[in-house]
Amino acid sequence: MTRAPGPIRLVPLGGLPEIAPGTDLAPLICGAAEAAGVSLAGNPIVVCQKIVSKAEGRLVALADVAPGEEAVEIARAHDRDPRQVEVVLRESRRIVRRGHGVLITETRHGFVCANAGVDLSNAPGPEIAVLLPEDPDASARRLHDALSGPDGATPVVISDTFGRPWREGLVDVALGSAGLAPIRDDRGSRDRAGRELLVTQPATADQLAAAAGLLMWKSAGIPVVVVEGFPFEGDGTVRDRLLRDPETDLFR
Amino acid sequence: MTRAPGPIRLVPLGGLPEIAPGTDLAPLICGAAEAAGVSLAGNPIVVCQKIVSKAEGRLVALADVAPGEEAVEIARAHDRDPRQVEVVLRESRRIVRRGHGVLITETRHGFVCANAGVDLSNAPGPEIAVLLPEDPDASARRLHDALSGPDGATPVVISDTFGRPWREGLVDVALGSAGLAPIRDDRGSRDRAGRELLVTQPATADQLAAAAGLLMWKSAGIPVVVVEGFPFEGDGTVRDRLLRDPETDLFR
Repeated sequence: MTRAPGPIRLVPLGGLPEIAPGTDLAPLICGAAEAAGVSLAGNPIVVCQKIVSKAEGRLVALADVAPGEEAVEIARAHDRDPRQVEVVLRESRRIVRRGHGVLITETRHGFVCANAGVDLSNAPGPEIAVLLPEDPDASARRLHDALSGPDGATPVVISDTFGRPWREGLVDVALGSAGLAPIRDDRGSRDRAGRELLVTQPATADQLAAAAGLLMWKSAGIPVVVVEGFPFEGDGTVRDRLLRDPETDLFR
Repeated sequence: MTRAPGPIRLVPLGGLPEIAPGTDLAPLICGAAEAAGVSLAGNPIVVCQKIVSKAEGRLVALADVAPGEEAVEIARAHDRDPRQVEVVLRESRRIVRRGHGVLITETRHGFVCANAGVDLSNAPGPEIAVLLPEDPDASARRLHDALSGPDGATPVVISDTFGRPWREGLVDVALGSAGLAPIRDDRGSRDRAGRELLVTQPATADQLAAAAGLLMWKSAGIPVVVVEGFPFEGDGTVRDRLLRDPETDLFR
């Protein structure tokens, strides 16, 4: 795609009710889009992980968690709740870093983030941990299939806010995607002087997640953002396209 | 800020001429905004680093570069141009990782990125390397001051595309900012259940950069994006607010 892109509009969808396990998100999102006067047909949406996890029942009551030895040790060293640490360890393949009260792990999906994405804020109760979706690409695919209609497809990106090495603050990244290419392959295209561009692969799904994050901060109650006018293309999952192969990862 | 946010529009500004050292960017950006029918007053803009660097004359002709011993060794090991490696090393404080043909360094500013941000694509000639601006926050401030008028301020974010550990693809990040808080402090605010949010600090400037990146891929010729309707606040530099203190950085 080399034509000049047009404007994009980011439209926040709010007013959703509290999401319980088993809630069908698709009709709620359709209703919110209608209320906001924006069409889902042919426009990607970014959905924050929290409502997807809640709808999928990815909740753990800390009262039911018996922390193991490792969790107790880590919790003691970093002044944390051992039950929460236990949940984090269960969701993780390995601990990547610990220190400054922070526990960074690689999740079973392959995401590297704080606390394996396990979060107690915006949970349905005071002692309830919300886990990441079991398979965020599959969650995105289900929503995509439910929302896409004869007037056009609705690509879906499921996002969460992650910290980053070397930089302060959080930026939203894609956990799952369906209905668009999560990475745009610009290799082989040419710059303005006709020189071939070698390594220009914008991570579209992450850019969409970050853009939506401008409207999604936790206290605002905006779990969905429609990206109107974005010229998406292709298809693919975050797992296959955005997670770096450990073999070529200089930061393993 | 707890009020629900409204829609945001990302408006690409194209049609700028090739930028030469000494070019005054402000009137070109004003003209492009006028042509696109979008106001700069009260709206942040994201400006890609490349045109800022060119305007500031941050160019090095490889023909003038005599590579040192270290550059020659690295170039040989990774099949690179020793003159380009020499330029990268001059722009760097330290090498962070090397391998798979990639050289990741910490720039003199403190950014961790491939090749210290030195880039030969979209350069004004075939053997010319474009360096990052000397002080991107100062570059942003100069543009902010030149563009802001009595009808409203124009916050400026200067962006570049960086790779990330663990994830494929590139996402735009902020190199410099002026006229808005690069990080939004949501700590102390409450979630929907009234629970205090402890570590929610969205990196606004990086989110803006990533959002603009949706329209800025290299072959599209879009060096500036206006973010219409974004409720910015505060002020601050990327150097002071977004670069992590080495003391608390688990990934040093």
